[in-house]
Amino acid sequence: MIQAHLLHQISLFAPLSPETLEWLGQHTALHEYGKQEQVIGKNEPSTELLFLIKGRLLVMDVAQDGQEVGLHIIQPGDYFGELSAIDGLPRAASVRAMEPSVVGKLSRECFQQLMSMAPSVTRAMLDRFALVIRANNKRRVILSINNVQRRVAALLLSYSTPEAGGRKALVIRQLPTQHELAAMANTSRESVSRVLRSLMEQGLIVREGRALVIPDPSAMDRLIQNAQRGAEDSGK
Amino acid sequence: MIQAHLLHQISLFAPLSPETLEWLGQHTALHEYGKQEQVIGKNEPSTELLFLIKGRLLVMDVAQDGQEVGLHIIQPGDYFGELSAIDGLPRAASVRAMEPSVVGKLSRECFQQLMSMAPSVTRAMLDRFALVIRANNKRRVILSINNVQRRVAALLLSYSTPEAGGRKALVIRQLPTQHELAAMANTSRESVSRVLRSLMEQGLIVREGRALVIPDPSAMDRLIQNAQRGAEDSGK
Repeated sequence: MIQAHLLHQISLFAPLSPETLEWLGQHTALHEYGKQEQVIGKNEPSTELLFLIKGRLLVMDVAQDGQEVGLHIIQPGDYFGELSAIDGLPRAASVRAMEPSVVGKLSRECFQQLMSMAPSVTRAMLDRFALVIRANNKRRVILSINNVQRRVAALLLSYSTPEAGGRKALVIRQLPTQHELAAMANTSRESVSRVLRSLMEQGLIVREGRALVIPDPSAMDRLIQNAQRGAEDSGK
Repeated sequence: MIQAHLLHQISLFAPLSPETLEWLGQHTALHEYGKQEQVIGKNEPSTELLFLIKGRLLVMDVAQDGQEVGLHIIQPGDYFGELSAIDGLPRAASVRAMEPSVVGKLSRECFQQLMSMAPSVTRAMLDRFALVIRANNKRRVILSINNVQRRVAALLLSYSTPEAGGRKALVIRQLPTQHELAAMANTSRESVSRVLRSLMEQGLIVREGRALVIPDPSAMDRLIQNAQRGAEDSGK
């Protein structure tokens, strides 16, 4: 049982009517997790829809060497676990609490009922899934590049957005950690570190505080294009 | 304008009421395509939902070397183009007619209206997207294997299903072409051909007509697991 004002803070539930929020509150359970505690385990058969009321969670994947790698952070107001809540299959990733956290859980049955009551929830699911599929497609193209420097360069380009002020430069405002970049580019953190250094020396990327600027995107493009022709010139 | 009995053959529309099919027929346009003609171009801004009434279509992606690679075949009764119809963004892949084909097109606006009228259509979209995301996840794990023989082995395993009769063997009833396997495993057709030969010589796979049998799945697993520990032992 959760109070409606808590549910209202979850982006997915914000458009719901007071009656639906009331119903939802009656069907939702609250769980508390300590720091480092596991919320979801990859391949686990649970199927609830989850949402974060308080705290911070880390979505983890298992890298090639068996090490867990943080993929992204779940902030209060976000929902997660929707894939299993839709298709009933085991969890696709692990989630762990980065700090003491409060998580709401809605059973798959109630979630399906909610979707039939609230088209905005279904719409949000479709939009989220489309976003995930687009991101996967982008990533697949990047992973098909056989050279780690050019692969990381393509990844950086994919994260960048036009800089304010109409300059041709692109900027990555929230640069992922080297661990995250390594997981996305399917390489080691050491390789990412080496590539970032090399790209900086070539003037292709410039650090500005927490942001990273790509002053000449077409030069980055040329670097990446060479890779797709040259192929196996330096492996991963 | 399409007659309801034609629409009824499309799996997505089969559960619809006669009234909804009637409405749908009034909002659908028929297009004919000659052999080799392009139905959709990757990155094109079109956003209709499409479905195949007659013929056969090939979904294509652009490989690393710029060559187009067939990814999968669309059969009569299938729908496609749903990603752009949901999110309004450009096409994620190209589609070409393999033989003279008849395609139905529903505008994005009508498709959205259809989803609000027919929950079964929305449900089918969610299920399709979940399937695509699961397949992408599986593929990402496979692509993270740094050795082409083990990567292709993992791909074959992912395509296989238990054989009838309770034997421990797995079988791939519809083996994809070597081109398709190459595109999925991010390698060349020549490498796929070489790996298949080698796996056959090792007795790990056995050809049986159009099907491929994996007589000892745990032996295949061991081969793949070694790769994930050994990592860069033979490149791609």
